Amino acid sequence: MSFKNFKCVPKMIFGRGSFVDLDLVLSEERQSTDDFVVFLVDDVHQDKPLAGRVPVKNHDLLIYVNVDDEPSTKQVDALTEQVQAFNTKHPVSVVGLGGGSTLDLAKAVSLMLTNPGGSAMYQGWDLIKHPAVHHIGIPTVSGTGAEASRTAVLCGPVRKLGLNSDHTVFDQIIMDSELIDGVSTDQWFYTGMDCYIHCVESLQGTFLNEFAKSFAEKSMDLCREVYINDHAEKDDKLMMASYMGGMSIAYSQVGACHAVSYGLGYVLGYHHGIGNCIVFDVLEDFYPEGVAEFRTMVKKHNITIPKGICTDLPDETIAKMVKVAKSMGPLWENVYGPTWEEKVTDEMLTALYRRM
Amino acid sequence: MSFKNFKCVPKMIFGRGSFVDLDLVLSEERQSTDDFVVFLVDDVHQDKPLAGRVPVKNHDLLIYVNVDDEPSTKQVDALTEQVQAFNTKHPVSVVGLGGGSTLDLAKAVSLMLTNPGGSAMYQGWDLIKHPAVHHIGIPTVSGTGAEASRTAVLCGPVRKLGLNSDHTVFDQIIMDSELIDGVSTDQWFYTGMDCYIHCVESLQGTFLNEFAKSFAEKSMDLCREVYINDHAEKDDKLMMASYMGGMSIAYSQVGACHAVSYGLGYVLGYHHGIGNCIVFDVLEDFYPEGVAEFRTMVKKHNITIPKGICTDLPDETIAKMVKVAKSMGPLWENVYGPTWEEKVTDEMLTALYRRM
Repeated sequence: MSFKNFKCVPKMIFGRGSFVDLDLVLSEERQSTDDFVVFLVDDVHQDKPLAGRVPVKNHDLLIYVNVDDEPSTKQVDALTEQVQAFNTKHPVSVVGLGGGSTLDLAKAVSLMLTNPGGSAMYQGWDLIKHPAVHHIGIPTVSGTGAEASRTAVLCGPVRKLGLNSDHTVFDQIIMDSELIDGVSTDQWFYTGMDCYIHCVESLQGTFLNEFAKSFAEKSMDLCREVYINDHAEKDDKLMMASYMGGMSIAYSQVGACHAVSYGLGYVLGYHHGIGNCIVFDVLEDFYPEGVAEFRTMVKKHNITIPKGICTDLPDETIAKMVKVAKSMGPLWENVYGPTWEEKVTDEMLTALYRRM
Repeated sequence: MSFKNFKCVPKMIFGRGSFVDLDLVLSEERQSTDDFVVFLVDDVHQDKPLAGRVPVKNHDLLIYVNVDDEPSTKQVDALTEQVQAFNTKHPVSVVGLGGGSTLDLAKAVSLMLTNPGGSAMYQGWDLIKHPAVHHIGIPTVSGTGAEASRTAVLCGPVRKLGLNSDHTVFDQIIMDSELIDGVSTDQWFYTGMDCYIHCVESLQGTFLNEFAKSFAEKSMDLCREVYINDHAEKDDKLMMASYMGGMSIAYSQVGACHAVSYGLGYVLGYHHGIGNCIVFDVLEDFYPEGVAEFRTMVKKHNITIPKGICTDLPDETIAKMVKVAKSMGPLWENVYGPTWEEKVTDEMLTALYRRM
């Protein structure tokens, strides 16, 4: 018998204004004068005050990354080549500054610098061979749990699937709630719901143990403080909800919403956060209480969840989404247990997509 | 400005029966044929079934440690010398199997193998110079948070104070709730209350942030499930309460109970768990709600908290305890803020001790 040996982020800084400490953290990694750092920064921050606060030194490489589309293996490989062309040495650290997509790009690039071949080769579980370059995650949108997780989700040539490995985990994260101030209400809501939905899926899942449960329950409570009770410390609480949601996944798994949402994202390009919301809104049979509470939060914040997006799609497009959703075995096993294959039928999935 | 960069345990196994995986974990550390592991095992397990399950190999050293008295710098130095006499090489791992005292011994020995001079030199904050030998913590009594914390509390020549450093943190912990089955009710209660009291102190403290708060709140909820609601999964929940209580201390601090209890422990030799209970029972002015709930739990489990232990002590003995308690600056600052010195008077502390 063998239990999961969970690797988590070993160093964390938490606090309003703590972004200022990034320079200090990097100074411990910079050993010789030609050492350099790679910063991958979400391009929404370009020309914003935060851009001027990134502690870039002479030899460093700062790349603004565009995450209008979900991160892909192609984008990761291009970024990796850009870093390799910049300097034949490895950077002493790769810093991701942005939302879940940017953090996943930083994780993936830090892995691909030390693991040869394209990133598509490593989509799956524990396929990574060599430790990554030191990498740091700094969320500027909160909820995905990317700062705490052992995956970097990428759209590849065949499907959307993560680079899941112990080496994927950040060496350091900085959780500074000041950085999430400028997020639009829609983005703030969709990303936070990613966290909320994670927790619903893992708490109702078959894989749950008390480790995962304690984290998921607290994360969900924190989401309620943020999205229902408008708590005064809601930015800090959302950062903690996201981190704890990510920790919860260690010993649990997401479920039906993420599986179906992967299909939607892969085929129609919907971003993870909004995609999850579109899907979750038709999952009342799976998660009755969670969906009811979700709708309360949607209403409270005047969010409009897109509707009718699949009604008129050709059958073959729906079939493509169904295929991707069906391929997410571990997620469905978390929902239904080992006999999931009997239950996850094309008819059931097609009916769900048609309702979106 | 600089924020605390919190180092936490990077690898964790959680689950009933997961102790079986220790062998597998160690096999990753054992590289050459003369590599050896040091096991420090609480001697209450000697001649018990658990002793036979420790994966000791030919070259290994297993030492049963006695923790009838609280761990001391002398004991740590003697154990370190015993390991050094056993083999001129460093062990590839030091495994602590027991309660908080045994875990603290394992942390301290793993540090002293690489840091010259006696352990008393390193009592304090961030005095450790070199990384420790790889070390693993496996609690068999739950509540202290020693599995998650960056300290190893030792009674030294001058006072009881921890080796507080990033290097103190375990490289790996295994949380197997089957191991805490055999603990006596008193021990189970006192150690769990250590966790509960941690949480009360940190939640009412001035150092608290949302990171610490989220962990402490959940830990306290879990304690209630264990000690008030008799939850069916109470062993697993207590393990999580202990871990989360330890995580909470990252960005908070214990308070009045621990400060006063250090005096009691240092001078009269009371163990940490029972000492905290004796002290907490007279702290209703500091923590009114916490003490009330604590008394409910004491009553429910028919625990007899020792009383009258200080009534007849000579003034100089009380004065010694007062001196130790007063020296715990950071703990008092957590209670009263920066002006704590005005408030922590000999009179106040003497009156508290006399009531115990």
